[in-house]
Amino acid sequence: MTGIWYKEYAQGRRFIIKISPGQRVGEQLVKFAEETGLKNAVIISAVGSLKNVRFRGIKTGAKRPITPPRMQVHEVEGPLELCGLEGNLFPDEKGSVDSHLHVMVSKSSGEVIGGHLFDAEVFATCEIILTEVLVEGIERHASKTGGVSTIYIDEE
Amino acid sequence: MTGIWYKEYAQGRRFIIKISPGQRVGEQLVKFAEETGLKNAVIISAVGSLKNVRFRGIKTGAKRPITPPRMQVHEVEGPLELCGLEGNLFPDEKGSVDSHLHVMVSKSSGEVIGGHLFDAEVFATCEIILTEVLVEGIERHASKTGGVSTIYIDEE
Amino acid sequence: MTGIWYKEYAQGRRFIIKISPGQRVGEQLVKFAEETGLKNAVIISAVGSLKNVRFRGIKTGAKRPITPPRMQVHEVEGPLELCGLEGNLFPDEKGSVDSHLHVMVSKSSGEVIGGHLFDAEVFATCEIILTEVLVEGIERHASKTGGVSTIYIDEE
Repeated sequence: MTGIWYKEYAQGRRFIIKISPGQRVGEQLVKFAEETGLKNAVIISAVGSLKNVRFRGIKTGAKRPITPPRMQVHEVEGPLELCGLEGNLFPDEKGSVDSHLHVMVSKSSGEVIGGHLFDAEVFATCEIILTEVLVEGIERHASKTGGVSTIYIDEE
Repeated sequence: MTGIWYKEYAQGRRFIIKISPGQRVGEQLVKFAEETGLKNAVIISAVGSLKNVRFRGIKTGAKRPITPPRMQVHEVEGPLELCGLEGNLFPDEKGSVDSHLHVMVSKSSGEVIGGHLFDAEVFATCEIILTEVLVEGIERHASKTGGVSTIYIDEE
Repeated sequence: MTGIWYKEYAQGRRFIIKISPGQRVGEQLVKFAEETGLKNAVIISAVGSLKNVRFRGIKTGAKRPITPPRMQVHEVEGPLELCGLEGNLFPDEKGSVDSHLHVMVSKSSGEVIGGHLFDAEVFATCEIILTEVLVEGIERHASKTGGVSTIYIDEE
């Protein structure tokens, strides 16, 4: 099958996570993964509020690969409602926990903004449901074509 | 572990739900939970369209805790495409079903708006996938620090 | 129970999917479902980036049913960060794979736009987690009241 790669996985542990005000989401998720020995995971749901959200968009009209001059970095102080946190954790080439997260947050006006998440601080609360993915042969590394880090499936 | 609290849960029942035009989403979800004896749950997916969507944002520059003067309430007639409904159901201190839902809806212009959902009416259809969370010792109550209701994990 | 319809389902196979740059998301998901014999499914998570995203909103003040003059079609070249892809796959009346997907993408400015997805092309990468839904008696067909295709549950 060209154009699409896929692999079946088995269900591992399921977790409810709460991150406290003032903590950084990305940092805490990595700490959590290390403490629980979690290798691969997917975020099922996330609600709460954030501040100092740093994320990236892609410049309109940009070509592949996505190099830094083709990105637009945003840092929004907020606080903002956390409306969506999508993504997964797969190990990088050295076997370390590596997350790929996209965020959506809403401003006081109701407007939703977002993109590829660098990091953010929890404002009032952050409730995450995350499940472990049991699978071998998937890791994240840089894509020469895309310019970003992405998962690679072993048969690929 | 400071800054983050977590607990493993077991998978309960899985449901496909369809809410009819004119019904209120929050009200129907609570009715559904009561009829099926559902205590804890997480929303996996939701698509459809809504009208009269009432939600809340946090005012830019607000401090914790989130008190009513620090919130901005929006009511949008629409109709709007339902692009995201994230959240969970955990019982409150009295053991009643209590939901924490954030919504994202898109306007005719394509612009997405959203925040902490109070309630909304189904416009054309609303398809929800929801799964039961089997766990003890988690309930939702007011956070003095955050000013909002959030889940508390018993070891906390 | 009036106003709400629901059915329990059983968990089927779980998949990690990666769609390559230049491929169309909707087309590849249908091809994937046909190759794996997947009848019903729900999207759990999706991250990546898209271009040439074609989606639909509902015109402000529109009444039911949603007829073409009451819709607003958007086509955005991008590229855009894929922040959310929500929806499900259930067969239509002829038993063919039929998807109902809503998309949220962010522009260079950080602004999130979205709606009912027609189709989109993968820009740098697209990582999807999807699970199979094992259930009988659910199919998608046109709703006379709503004007859109939606799922019907057999007891309905």
